[in-house]
Amino acid sequence: MIIAVDGYGGDYAPLEILKGSALAVSEMGVSIILTGDKSELEKLSEENEIELTNIEILNTRTFITMDDEARSVVREKSDSSMALALKLLSSGEADACVSAGPTGAYLMGATMIVKRIKGVKRPALGSVIPGQISPYMLIDCGANAEVRPEMLEQFGMFGSVYMKNIIGIKDPKVGLANNGTEESKGTELVKSAYELMKNSDIINFFGNIEGRDIPKGICEVVVADGFTGNLILKTIEGMAESLFSTIKSAFLTNAKTKIAAMMIKKEFKELKKRMDYSEYGGAPFIGLNKPVIKAHGSSNKKAIKNAIKQAITWSGSGINGEIEELVGK
Amino acid sequence: MIIAVDGYGGDYAPLEILKGSALAVSEMGVSIILTGDKSELEKLSEENEIELTNIEILNTRTFITMDDEARSVVREKSDSSMALALKLLSSGEADACVSAGPTGAYLMGATMIVKRIKGVKRPALGSVIPGQISPYMLIDCGANAEVRPEMLEQFGMFGSVYMKNIIGIKDPKVGLANNGTEESKGTELVKSAYELMKNSDIINFFGNIEGRDIPKGICEVVVADGFTGNLILKTIEGMAESLFSTIKSAFLTNAKTKIAAMMIKKEFKELKKRMDYSEYGGAPFIGLNKPVIKAHGSSNKKAIKNAIKQAITWSGSGINGEIEELVGK
Repeated sequence: MIIAVDGYGGDYAPLEILKGSALAVSEMGVSIILTGDKSELEKLSEENEIELTNIEILNTRTFITMDDEARSVVREKSDSSMALALKLLSSGEADACVSAGPTGAYLMGATMIVKRIKGVKRPALGSVIPGQISPYMLIDCGANAEVRPEMLEQFGMFGSVYMKNIIGIKDPKVGLANNGTEESKGTELVKSAYELMKNSDIINFFGNIEGRDIPKGICEVVVADGFTGNLILKTIEGMAESLFSTIKSAFLTNAKTKIAAMMIKKEFKELKKRMDYSEYGGAPFIGLNKPVIKAHGSSNKKAIKNAIKQAITWSGSGINGEIEELVGK
Repeated sequence: MIIAVDGYGGDYAPLEILKGSALAVSEMGVSIILTGDKSELEKLSEENEIELTNIEILNTRTFITMDDEARSVVREKSDSSMALALKLLSSGEADACVSAGPTGAYLMGATMIVKRIKGVKRPALGSVIPGQISPYMLIDCGANAEVRPEMLEQFGMFGSVYMKNIIGIKDPKVGLANNGTEESKGTELVKSAYELMKNSDIINFFGNIEGRDIPKGICEVVVADGFTGNLILKTIEGMAESLFSTIKSAFLTNAKTKIAAMMIKKEFKELKKRMDYSEYGGAPFIGLNKPVIKAHGSSNKKAIKNAIKQAITWSGSGINGEIEELVGK
């Protein structure tokens, strides 16, 4: 299996991307095509004693930055490290693609270059989040700010298929994010989506799910439009950050609390590990012909390695075939 | 000052409502008209030795329950404890109204009975949340699932006026909840609202705010439509619950962690107090002719007392006059 990796996407590119790729090769025996500045990448690998076996470098000196408009990836920067990685996927030279670069450009590039599965109305960005009861996928997390009800229905199906095949959850419950649990709640959009999902034979529809129950993980798939989903996802991240930073300062209050911190260090480490998103890799962009994974912008080598691992699992799973069959129904 | 209190709204009604009202009278010297079953309330006050001085009871045996449709408050249950409390406000017999009853019915009843300030397009439900840097108001939290851009602009103004006058924040920054900070981000609705808010002389517009920054409190007012705002608010509540319950179980792991828990008990208690919403009272329903406060459904006596305290501050603040003047501009 060959994974295309954008060597110059993300806050810690290229070094952490390079390290993560090398880790993936040594641990999983995969082959990687890394896109980016060949001479710089070779220099970095020498300086940091990173083995380049099974890592091919596809040279380019054009990179997508946070300041670039999303469409640049298919226009003036169509030779960027991100665009090249996506083209490797589209041409069949790679089986999956990973990038930690800017989301907007990556989603647009993937949609235009890799293209949708026939019957898919809109590909959607999923995010697997560690919940209190179960991990759950929030989908869409920001690919489509405005959607139609039938798109939300498809997102529920994408999430179901993914959680079943990649995360191993049997018959995942699909909830529709809403401002109340009653069927009559919400905007016209979600009310129409509710009707469609209630009558679907494909998904195990739970009904509406309120914000309060989302982090608990009572539904293994939570469906939202990309605008709302992105706000929910980021609010979850922000709350976790805020709370841990507040708790940390409580532990640093005085000598006594510092001792308490030492005594519970191990359990807190386990707790933080359980809540670490990067365990599930990056965010899958579902509905395209090939597996496309968006790694977090702040990905370190471990996050990149996990995203590559996820790309391998996804590519070998045949879920794209399952989606194609289901959307054809 | 006279506050109308719905004696039969909320999970712990009527006892906790009665206790909270009595606390407010003794601590703040306010007069209260409590609506509900007079003989039961008198019996409860006797059994629990609750002083009824300055608490007048307006008798009714009709109550709004979770199973009632919202509109019942102005139709078949127009003699319910909730409807009566709102009517006391509308007639001028009370200066503000507090209920912990079902949100939908309360908002509908308040809008129909108390009526909007002239020029207000839609009243909105605000919620003051303790943030990491500053408390902030999320508005709208669920009164209006579908809105127009000019309504979002007004919500920003309501939040500003409230945070300035009631919470004491000078020139509050108003952020627009969005799936990215760039001006080009979001739905057509928020893009249009952005334009209006950017050009407003009334509010101190911060620009777009992402979910990640909302819980930090970098903006003292966060504006959203009621659908999105409700999901954000409840997600924040759900994350706090989930995280504290996970942390609690970490502290209960073994003898050592239990000792650690005891050592940091005081600091955690302070932290939880700092994060306790009920310190700010209930959720103000802003844009109506008189102060209407929605107390949390699970309100205990302290939460009711705080909601009454907030009603007193609001009623004495003249912010409704300020809003009337600003919407007239």
